[in-house]
This record gives sequence, C-alpha cells and structure tokens, in this order.
Amino acid sequence: MDSELIYLDHAAATPLDERALAAMTRYFSDAFYNPSSPYALAVDVRRDYEEAKHILAMCIGGKADDITITAGATESINLMFASIRGHVVTSAIEHHAVLAAAAKHESTLVPVSSKGIVDPASVADAIRPDTQLVSIALANNEIGTIQPLREIAEVVHKERQRRFEAGDETPLYFHTDASQGVGQIDVNVARLGVDAMTINAAKIYGPKQVAFLWAQHTVRLQPLVVGGGQERGLRSGTENVAGVVGFATALQLGVDHKNSEAKRLARLRDTLQSELLKAFPDAVVSGHPKKRLPGHLHVSFAGIDAERLVFALETRGVMVATGSACAANKGTRSHVLTAIGLEPLVADGSLRLTLGRLTNEQTISRAVVILIEVITNEMNRSRG
Amino acid sequence: MDSELIYLDHAAATPLDERALAAMTRYFSDAFYNPSSPYALAVDVRRDYEEAKHILAMCIGGKADDITITAGATESINLMFASIRGHVVTSAIEHHAVLAAAAKHESTLVPVSSKGIVDPASVADAIRPDTQLVSIALANNEIGTIQPLREIAEVVHKERQRRFEAGDETPLYFHTDASQGVGQIDVNVARLGVDAMTINAAKIYGPKQVAFLWAQHTVRLQPLVVGGGQERGLRSGTENVAGVVGFATALQLGVDHKNSEAKRLARLRDTLQSELLKAFPDAVVSGHPKKRLPGHLHVSFAGIDAERLVFALETRGVMVATGSACAANKGTRSHVLTAIGLEPLVADGSLRLTLGRLTNEQTISRAVVILIEVITNEMNRSRG
Repeated sequence: MDSELIYLDHAAATPLDERALAAMTRYFSDAFYNPSSPYALAVDVRRDYEEAKHILAMCIGGKADDITITAGATESINLMFASIRGHVVTSAIEHHAVLAAAAKHESTLVPVSSKGIVDPASVADAIRPDTQLVSIALANNEIGTIQPLREIAEVVHKERQRRFEAGDETPLYFHTDASQGVGQIDVNVARLGVDAMTINAAKIYGPKQVAFLWAQHTVRLQPLVVGGGQERGLRSGTENVAGVVGFATALQLGVDHKNSEAKRLARLRDTLQSELLKAFPDAVVSGHPKKRLPGHLHVSFAGIDAERLVFALETRGVMVATGSACAANKGTRSHVLTAIGLEPLVADGSLRLTLGRLTNEQTISRAVVILIEVITNEMNRSRG
Repeated sequence: MDSELIYLDHAAATPLDERALAAMTRYFSDAFYNPSSPYALAVDVRRDYEEAKHILAMCIGGKADDITITAGATESINLMFASIRGHVVTSAIEHHAVLAAAAKHESTLVPVSSKGIVDPASVADAIRPDTQLVSIALANNEIGTIQPLREIAEVVHKERQRRFEAGDETPLYFHTDASQGVGQIDVNVARLGVDAMTINAAKIYGPKQVAFLWAQHTVRLQPLVVGGGQERGLRSGTENVAGVVGFATALQLGVDHKNSEAKRLARLRDTLQSELLKAFPDAVVSGHPKKRLPGHLHVSFAGIDAERLVFALETRGVMVATGSACAANKGTRSHVLTAIGLEPLVADGSLRLTLGRLTNEQTISRAVVILIEVITNEMNRSRG
C-alpha cells in the first residue's frame, strides 16, 4: 500500500501477512496435489493440511477433529445454524450473517444496553424449552463492544443442566463468531465457555475465503454442502490446502502477539479518541468505554453526513468506514446503532475507525490532523 | 515440481498457472480492500472483481449477471440442487457431489452404455411431471466419456415446451458440471444447450476453492448461505477477489488454447494408449473410443491390484490414480466402473492416466517405459 495512505478500516479487511503468504506459496505450484490422492507427495500435502488444522485448534484451545474448514465466517455461521432445528436466541446487534441465518428459524433477538452489552439475564429470559442455539459474537464489528460470553455460557450451562435433570434431550449449544477478537483479546474456547466458534482468516491478516467452525464433539453438525465426504462428511469439496496453511500461520501470529498488540492499539486508539474529543467536545463515542476492542473507535458527529465525510477523508488519503462495510448495509441506517438507541441525527454522522497492523504513531498523528480539518470543514459547511 | 517426476493425474488436481498467480498477487496485500467498502481503492477492487466475472461469463458465452461465485464445484452443485424441490434425473456415473446432492431429492439415475454414454432417450423416459432438474456432467472424471449434452438438452426443451402448452408451471432445468472439459472441449452454454453450468478453477490451473455456478436468468436459484447479500443475495460472504481474478485468467487461457492443447494431448494420449496395448494386448481401455477427453486414458489390467501398482509406479516417480481421487471413493470399487459393467477382476486393476500441461513427449516416452516395466513385474508377481 502507498505509504502516504492511512488505512483505518481493519475491521472490514486486512492485508495478507507476508509470513502467511510465504507459507502458502508452495501449495500453489510445487505441492498442488489433491490431498485425497494416494501417492506420497499428495499424502505429504494431506499431512500438512492436518497439521495446519491442528495449529488452528491449538490457538483456540480446541481439538483439530472438532474443526470444520469453510469458505468464510458467513458459511461457518450458516453451517452452525443449519445444524439445529428449534428456536434460536441471538442479539439485536449481530452481524448480518447471524441475523439472516436466524431468520430461517424462530428466533428471539435480545436487546443490548446503550453501550452495546448483551445482558446474560436477557439471554436467560429469552431461552425457551425448544431453544437449541444461542449465538452471540465475541465483539461487535461496528462499535467494538466485547460481550460477557463467560456469563452467557453459565446461563446456557444452567439450562442444559435443567434439561438433563428433567430427562429432556433437546440440545442447546452456545456459538460465538470471534473473528473480530483475534489478535486483540482472548479467544480460548474453554475460558469463554462456548460450544462452537467461528473464526475468519480474512479479518486476521490471513487469506480471504477461509474460515473455520469449531464445534466440540457434543455438537451434532449437519452438512450444508454434501459430496466427496471431506471434513468428516461435514463440508465436502477438495481441501483448500494453501488457504488453511496461511490461515494457521495468521491465527498463530495473532494469538502469539495478542498482548503486546492489544496494548499498542489501545494506546493509539486512546490518543485518536482523546484528540478528536478535544477538538469536538460534542462528538459521541459509542461502544463500551472499557469492554471494547483495543483497535476500535466508533465516533459520531451529529448533523454531519458520514458518507460525505468518508469521501472527503479519502481525498486526503484516509480510509475509514461508515458503520459496517457489509453489502447489505448500503444506504440503510445501521441496525447496531439503532439498537443502542443512537438518535438518527447522530447515527448518520458516524465513522468507524479501526486500527491494526498498518497503524502506527505516525499514521495516527497524521490521521488526527486530517480528521480534525475535514470534520471541521464539513461542520462549517453544514452550518453554512 | 521435480523434473524427474511424471504427473499423470491432471483430473485430480492441476498446478496454479503462473499467469493466474501473477494476476492474483496484488489482491493479497496491495489491493486487499473489502469490495463493499466505500473509498475509491475498494471501489477499484470491486470493479476488478466484476471485470473478472465478466471474463468468466464470456468464456462460456454467458452473462456476468448470471454467475454466482462459490468455493468449489461441490458447492456450486449443491447450490443448484438446493434451488429445486421436485424430482431429479441424473446418471449412474456422476461425481459424488451430484449423487449426494441428488440423494436429498427423489431421483432417477439413468444407466449408461458400456462406453459410459448417457442415452438421451433414457433421460426422456426418466423425466416425470414433477421433475425439476436434469444434471449430467459434460465429461466423466474417471473414464473421460463426453456426453451428448446437445441431444439431452433437446429432450429437456421438448418437455418444457409440453409443460408450457399444458399451462403447467413446474420448472425444469438442465445443469452440467463442465469442470473436466475446460481447455480440452467446447464449454459454450448456448451450443451445449444447458440452463446452468458449474466450472471449478482447481481443475483448470486456477486457484483451489473457487468455482462458479452459471445459471441463466430463467433459473430461480435459492441461496445455501445467507448473510450480507453478496452475489445478488445468492451466496453471502466477502468476495474472493484474488481467487476470482486468478480463475478468470485460468479459464481464459484454457478456452483460448483449447484447440491446440486438445490436439497435443490427444496425440500424446494415443501414443500412451497404443504403446500400452501393444505391450499388454489384454488390457481393457474404458470410456468411449472417440467421444472421450483428449487427455484421458482409463486402462485396466485384469487380475492386477491397482493400489499396489500405484505405489510401485510412485517409487519410479510416476503419479497416477486408481479410479476417482475423491475421498468418498477410498477402499470401495468405483461406481462408474460398476455402471459400465466392468467385471470386478478388471475394475480392480484399473489406472486412470490423465494428461495435461505438465505432460510432453519426453514424459510420455519415459512413462511408457516405466509403466510397461512396473505392470510386467506386477503381472509376473501375481502369476508367480
């Protein structure tokens, strides 16, 4: 990327880490074999693939046998939802993939607080005797709020215990999409208490169109895509060896450097936030002040048109998002901002600034200057 | 790949063409943006993605708006089958992906001739008033037989006309998986007369985990994977820009060089076939003698254990398959060979030799010598 450019949209996409790419390259041409072929060079490729899945599993404290590789978080989420039949509990601020998959079931969307927090008590209230799935993202992709998954897991475990004691065999699973948390916060499945987890390589400096659904052995998954029987019959199709090897490298790097990177990003984000609030005391920062992704800053300027702002910033080389970058979101107000109760006038002036590996002190210093100039211009214009 | 190695398994996997990889590289790091992001660099990426889909469509004589990108032929086939509700007609020698997807419906598997040809009259007989889909692969992945799609399309069109005249609105679509034909035979959708076509990048020197389902606008597809609404709502998830750009380059190269490559491969394959038959007059060649992929040779040696043969050949640097390389096939007799009526003793001694870009006169000369030696040894051993 041109070094003059300032990319503050890491939640939308991340560049492929050069170490991940280096790990992938040999599977494009030298080791291109079908992992199901019988000869030794293909068997080696199969072994490398399984080893990469083992690394992916270790990074979240799971087992490789419980990982199903898919072509993205959206497919992983759809696979999870297609595996259950009953009622679903999720939140009003979930990603479109979860909301769309939930819409195929009877579902209850629990509300969130003005900081975007899902109350475990609301989840407990929403669970019905026929609820089979609770799905809550680890961290929100727009406002960065980190959910109390451990406490929600306890609610799920309590209901599961009640069913067990009542001799009720209706399954109940707890799934989380943790894609936005990797490299910034803990994604250990045992510590979070989840039964199933989605992680997307594309959001963590890995290749695009690779993700996994981890689901512990008690979760009975049903395939969306049938055929040759790959991935233990749960997702047929010739394996994406290069993609999975790159994914494993990226996830390992993310997990290994989480603590230092989280500290670094939080410091930069806090600088950005305080400088913007100093210049614009009426600006509204959304998301939880503490329980928030370290690289995330969602900030709103009432009365400003965020879409104009994005284009004005772009002419100065600064790339940011207005709300979610999802295609479905275009031209409509974010359901997340509505759910946290942001006034339309405020919501429509929202920028999502997400920091990551392309961010450093220099880019943040320059971003602060440009943001203040451009926002000031827009404010003067809208008042004029 | 080591130049001493002789790869005769192009139907299982192909190396990524270096021109396809070159086209992909910039989307890994420089142009990694989410195509749904609003700033100009992301809009450029969106444009490149749409342009690549346009090239894909042109290569088969279709329109870009009718192309849905998926993560592989298996997903494309599943998407097609998930879009219909009624009865399905397919053949007894289809790929596992088609057979597994068909098993979710009421289905009729039409038999094939001893050469592996689907008789259009059998398809006509199998079509019921509630049939909604006929799915026949352009060329069989094991024995290479090319199907009379044009004639089968006429059967489908005739039934459609009958329904139209009767005021019956039950849809009827004709789908083909053409992955094995690209670069060797014609894949123009209009000339073949199909309503929907699957093509897989991984089989045509493109990247793995990329394919498309082309379906003309009269086909009402139903999404398998829902979410952000990408691919006209038919397949949600952030787009695989690098993969699709690489796929377009690979498909274009395949289509552009089809005639010369088909001639080259047929000459090499015919040499291989005649040399093997000269040495082993009792060997059985399967598939249609004329209507067969130019790079395909399926040959059986009665009484020989093909798995032993594969391993013996491997120690001499020759990589070949026994029947299909699909995971589901392991340790069981090929359903294709059963369907064409091959005796078990013959079927179990079958090699699939598939030629492609890694094959030339030198490799074929060397392969002939090694194959004859190794097969002779195995014959002596099994007689001893």
